[in-house]
Amino acid sequence: MSEAAQTLDGWYCLHDFRTVDWTTWKMLSSDERQSAIHEFLSLVEKWNHTQERNEGSHALYTIVGQKADFMMMILRPTMQELNEIETEFNKTKLAEFTIPAHSYVSVVELSNYLPAGEDPYQNPQILARLYPKLPKTAHVCFYPMDKRRQGNDNWYMLPMEDRRNMMRSHGMIGRTYAGKVKQIITGSVGFDDYEWGVTLFAEDVLQFKKLVYEMRFDEVSARFGEFGAFFVGNLLEEERVPRFLHV
Amino acid sequence: MSEAAQTLDGWYCLHDFRTVDWTTWKMLSSDERQSAIHEFLSLVEKWNHTQERNEGSHALYTIVGQKADFMMMILRPTMQELNEIETEFNKTKLAEFTIPAHSYVSVVELSNYLPAGEDPYQNPQILARLYPKLPKTAHVCFYPMDKRRQGNDNWYMLPMEDRRNMMRSHGMIGRTYAGKVKQIITGSVGFDDYEWGVTLFAEDVLQFKKLVYEMRFDEVSARFGEFGAFFVGNLLEEERVPRFLHV
Amino acid sequence: MSEAAQTLDGWYCLHDFRTVDWTTWKMLSSDERQSAIHEFLSLVEKWNHTQERNEGSHALYTIVGQKADFMMMILRPTMQELNEIETEFNKTKLAEFTIPAHSYVSVVELSNYLPAGEDPYQNPQILARLYPKLPKTAHVCFYPMDKRRQGNDNWYMLPMEDRRNMMRSHGMIGRTYAGKVKQIITGSVGFDDYEWGVTLFAEDVLQFKKLVYEMRFDEVSARFGEFGAFFVGNLLEEERVPRFLHV
Amino acid sequence: MSEAAQTLDGWYCLHDFRTVDWTTWKMLSSDERQSAIHEFLSLVEKWNHTQERNEGSHALYTIVGQKADFMMMILRPTMQELNEIETEFNKTKLAEFTIPAHSYVSVVELSNYLPAGEDPYQNPQILARLYPKLPKTAHVCFYPMDKRRQGNDNWYMLPMEDRRNMMRSHGMIGRTYAGKVKQIITGSVGFDDYEWGVTLFAEDVLQFKKLVYEMRFDEVSARFGEFGAFFVGNLLEEERVPRFLHV
Amino acid sequence: MSEAAQTLDGWYCLHDFRTVDWTTWKMLSSDERQSAIHEFLSLVEKWNHTQERNEGSHALYTIVGQKADFMMMILRPTMQELNEIETEFNKTKLAEFTIPAHSYVSVVELSNYLPAGEDPYQNPQILARLYPKLPKTAHVCFYPMDKRRQGNDNWYMLPMEDRRNMMRSHGMIGRTYAGKVKQIITGSVGFDDYEWGVTLFAEDVLQFKKLVYEMRFDEVSARFGEFGAFFVGNLLEEERVPRFLHV
Repeated sequence: MSEAAQTLDGWYCLHDFRTVDWTTWKMLSSDERQSAIHEFLSLVEKWNHTQERNEGSHALYTIVGQKADFMMMILRPTMQELNEIETEFNKTKLAEFTIPAHSYVSVVELSNYLPAGEDPYQNPQILARLYPKLPKTAHVCFYPMDKRRQGNDNWYMLPMEDRRNMMRSHGMIGRTYAGKVKQIITGSVGFDDYEWGVTLFAEDVLQFKKLVYEMRFDEVSARFGEFGAFFVGNLLEEERVPRFLHV
Repeated sequence: MSEAAQTLDGWYCLHDFRTVDWTTWKMLSSDERQSAIHEFLSLVEKWNHTQERNEGSHALYTIVGQKADFMMMILRPTMQELNEIETEFNKTKLAEFTIPAHSYVSVVELSNYLPAGEDPYQNPQILARLYPKLPKTAHVCFYPMDKRRQGNDNWYMLPMEDRRNMMRSHGMIGRTYAGKVKQIITGSVGFDDYEWGVTLFAEDVLQFKKLVYEMRFDEVSARFGEFGAFFVGNLLEEERVPRFLHV
Repeated sequence: MSEAAQTLDGWYCLHDFRTVDWTTWKMLSSDERQSAIHEFLSLVEKWNHTQERNEGSHALYTIVGQKADFMMMILRPTMQELNEIETEFNKTKLAEFTIPAHSYVSVVELSNYLPAGEDPYQNPQILARLYPKLPKTAHVCFYPMDKRRQGNDNWYMLPMEDRRNMMRSHGMIGRTYAGKVKQIITGSVGFDDYEWGVTLFAEDVLQFKKLVYEMRFDEVSARFGEFGAFFVGNLLEEERVPRFLHV
Repeated sequence: MSEAAQTLDGWYCLHDFRTVDWTTWKMLSSDERQSAIHEFLSLVEKWNHTQERNEGSHALYTIVGQKADFMMMILRPTMQELNEIETEFNKTKLAEFTIPAHSYVSVVELSNYLPAGEDPYQNPQILARLYPKLPKTAHVCFYPMDKRRQGNDNWYMLPMEDRRNMMRSHGMIGRTYAGKVKQIITGSVGFDDYEWGVTLFAEDVLQFKKLVYEMRFDEVSARFGEFGAFFVGNLLEEERVPRFLHV
Repeated sequence: MSEAAQTLDGWYCLHDFRTVDWTTWKMLSSDERQSAIHEFLSLVEKWNHTQERNEGSHALYTIVGQKADFMMMILRPTMQELNEIETEFNKTKLAEFTIPAHSYVSVVELSNYLPAGEDPYQNPQILARLYPKLPKTAHVCFYPMDKRRQGNDNWYMLPMEDRRNMMRSHGMIGRTYAGKVKQIITGSVGFDDYEWGVTLFAEDVLQFKKLVYEMRFDEVSARFGEFGAFFVGNLLEEERVPRFLHV
C-alpha cells in the first residue's frame, strides 16, 4: 500500500455563496418578491425532506462582510445531485437577484491517519461523520486549505509515520474543543483548488478564532498549512428568510 | 496551557468600504437624494444612540484614492448585530448608489503577551480598550496583517519567550507614539483572510507613515510581518455628509 | 540531441468553459430558446460528423460549482479549426446567453520519457492516444500544471535520467488506475499559461480524488508539481441539453 | 534614534489613472461634450492657479496601452485637499465617462540616508524637491516599489550603515541621468500598498528604460527591489485635451 | 561602463488584445456593421501605407481561446504614435463592440550580450532587426518574461561574463529554429510589468511549443526565467476580416 493510504469518503459537498443584488430586488413588486421567497422556501422544504430521509443534508447561513450575503451548504450522495440542485437554484426567481460570490466542491472525508485494524464502515460513529446531519448552530466558519510543498516544508515528502504523529497531535487540539466546535472536513483534491475544505459550527463564534489560532502553533499548521479565504456567518433559519429578504 | 495562550477579546468589528456610483446618483432628483441622505443619517443617528449607551461604537471616514469613497467602521457585542447593520445599510436608498469595495471582519483583541498574574477583566484600562469608543481624529489608516510562516521566518514555530520579547519591543515603538496615534488591533483568525486588522487614528496623517515605517525595522515586522492593502482616510463628520454627497 | 528531447504531438485541444446567464436566458420566449438550443445542437451534430470521420473529437460536460456551468472540450488537427469552432459558437444565439468562464489551449502530447528504439508513429496504441476519441464517462476532471523551477526543486535543472526515472514511477501510479481513470495529457508550453493540461475521465468521480491524491505523494508531484484551478463535471449528453437549458 | 531614522516629507500626492468610456462618450451631443470638456478644463485652470501660488502642483499625461487612458498627478499640502480634488473630479460630467483604472496615495519624500549635520529645511534645493513644480516633459513613468523582506534578502534587517552605502551607490546611478530624467520619490508606507512610488519625467522616453534597467543591476534593486505595475505616458497639454477627447 | 551595458533599441511596440462583444455587435444592422468594418479596414490601409514607407509595421492575428478574440501588434518610431493609433482605434465604431483584453508596451531591443568592437548601427542585418517588417506567418505567439531575482537564482547579481555565456548558449537554441521561428524581442523595463516581451512567428504552430520547451531546459530559462501569460493566434489577413466579423 502506498504512502498516500486510503481516506474514507462520504457525501459530496457544495458550498454555494451568493450576494443579493438589493437594488434590482427592490424593483420587484412586493407580490413578486413574496412569490420568489416562497419558491426558494419550497426548494429548501424539498431539501428538508431529503434530509429527513437521511439522503443528504444542508445548511443556510448569512455571511458577515461583503464576501457574500448568504451561503447554502449542500451534502448529497452524488456529484450529479449537487449539480442538479445548483442548476435548480440558478433557475429560480430569487437567483435572478443573487450574484455568485464563491463556491467550493468537495466530499466529506475522514483522515487516513486512523488506527489500523478496524473496519471503519462498521463503526456507527464513523458513518455518522461521513453522512452527517448538519447542525443548526448559531455560527459557521468555512475555509479551504492545502498542505504546503515548499523547500524544507514539504508535507508530501515526509514519511507517513511523521505525518501520522503530527496529525494525531493536531487532532488532539480539535478534541479539546469537543462540545464547543463541530468540524466537518471535506476533501477536494481533484475537485477544487485547495486540497481540503474545513467547515466549523459553533454556538460561540469566538471559538472559531480560538481553535484556528491555537492550531496555528501546531507544527501541521505552522509549517505545513496554507489557507484560503475565510468566511464567517450566522444561522439563517428558514423562518428568518422572509425578514432577511424584506425590503 | 498551550503555546498559543489566550487573547482578550472585546467587541466584534466590521470595516465596510464603499464606492459611490456618482453617475447614477446624479440621475436622482434633488429631493430623492435629500431623502436618501436623510435615511442614511437616521441610521447613523441610531448608531450614535447605541454608542451613547456604550453598546457599540462606529466611525465614518472618506477614503483617499480609488480603493473606496468612504468607510464605515462598526463595533458591536455580537456578529449578528454586525450582520444586521450591514444588511440594514444594504437595504437603504443610498446603498443603491454605492458599490461594495472591501470589507473586513474581526474582533477587538488584546495581545496574549501581557504580564501574567492580574485579572485583566478587572482592569478598567483594559476594558476601555476592549470596548472602545472610536475617536474622531482627522485621519484613519487601516490594513490587515499576518505573521509570516516561511522557511526560517516562521513566527508560529518560535518559542513563546522569543515571541513575547519581540512583541514587547514592538509594543515599545507603539508607545512612543502615544498621544499621536491611537491603535486598535482586531483579531481575524477564523473570521477573515488575514490574522489581524490594524486601525490607526491620528490628527496628523504623517504619523501613520512614521509609525508603520519605524515598526518595519523591528524584527517582528521586518522578518515576520505580511501586510495586505492599506487604506487611508479623512474624518467624515455627520454634518459633512450632505456636502460630500452633494452633486 | 538536447536534454529536452522530443514529445509526440497529436490533435490540438481547446477546453472552453461557459457560464449561463440564466436571467437573460429566461427573458427569451420559449420559441426563441428552442431555436437557440436547436442551433447549438446542430453545431454539436456537425462535430459528431467530424468525430465519425476521425477528424477530431469533442466532449460536453456540466461543471459543478460556480466556476462554470458547462465545458466544451474540442480536439482538431489544426489551431485554425479550434479558432473557427470557438468563433462559430460565439456567433450562435446561445452564446449571447453564456459568459466565457475559462479556456485552455493545448495539444495532445505523449511524454518524451518513452523507451527508445521504436518508431512511435507506427504504433497503433500511440496513434490512438494522439488522436483519441473522447470517452463519454459519467465524470470529467480538468486542471493545468507546471513543473516547478524553485530553489532546489527545479525540474528543468535535473539530469534527464533522473527525470525519466521519476516519470516512470509516476506513470506506474497512473497505470494502477487503468480501467478506472482515462488520462489525456495535453502540452501547452507556448500556447497557454501552464505547461500541461490534464483531463481525466471516470465513471466513479471519487477516482479523480484518489488518483490525484496518491500522485501528490510521488516525488514528481510532491516536489515538482504546481497546479492551477481544478474543474470537475458530469457528462452532458446531447439529449439532456434541452432539459439542462429548460427554464 | 532608531534604525529607521527620519525622512523629510513634503506635499501629499495622488496619482489618479482613468480610462475613457468612448462608447457612452460618443452618445453625448457635441454640445454636451464641449460643455464637459470645458468644465474639466476649468478644474485644471483652478489647479493652475494653485500651482502659481506655489500651494500645490499637478500633471496630465495620456497613458500608453490599455491600463488607462490618462493620468492626473496631484500634489497638495494636505490629504484633505487630495480627497476634495478627487471627489470634485468624480462629480464632473467628464467623470461620468471615465472608469477609475488605478490610483496611488503617497507623500513626496527625501531619503533618510542623507549626510547628517545640516538642517534640511533651510536648504532651498531640498525645499524645491519637497514642494516641487511638476515638469512638463514629453513623457512620464510611474511605478510603486517595496524593499524586499525575504529570507537572506531582508532589507529591514540590514544594519543602517549597509543600507546607507547601498543607497548612496544607488543614488549615484540616478545622478548620471541628471538633465535626462527627473525623479520624484514619494513615500506610501501606511498610505498605499507599496512602500514607495517612483515618478520619472523625461523628454526621451528611452531614458526610463535605460535608468530602470541599469539600476536593476545595482544591489539595492537586484536583491531588494520588488516592483509593482509600470505606467508610461505622453504629456497631455491642456490645449490638446479637446483633440484627445474629440470623437 | 556599468554591468548593465547598453542595448540597441528600435521601434516602439504596442500589443493590443481585444475581445469582440458579439451580442451587441449582432444588434447593429448589416449596413452599420459593413460601415464599421470598412472604417477599420481603412485604418489598416493607413497602417499599410506607413509600413510601405518603412515608418512602422503591424500585424493582425486572431487569438485562440477566451483570452482575446484578436490582437493588433503595432510598431512605430515614437510612443506618441502608438498612443495616437490606440486612441484612433478606440474612437472607431468597431471599438464600441470590442472589450480591451490585454496590452503590452515595449520597444524592439537587441541584447547587450553582442560581441564588442563593431558599430551595430552600421550593420544592415541589425537595422533590419531593430526596424522589422512583421512577417505574415500563419501563427503568432506572445508572452512577457522577467529574469528572476530570487535567493540564489538572482540574474542581476551574476557577473556579466556568466550572463553573457548563458545568453550565448540560449541564443544557440534559438538559432537552430532559424527558418522555422522568427523571434522579435522587445524590452519593457520602465514601460510595462515584465522586463521583456517575446513575439514568435511561425508557419507551423508546433514550433512555438518545441522552441519554448527546449529553451526551458536551458539554464537561462530553467533557473532565471519568469513567464507571464501566453497568447497564441492565427493570421488574420485583411481580406478575412469581413468573414471573421460576419454574423
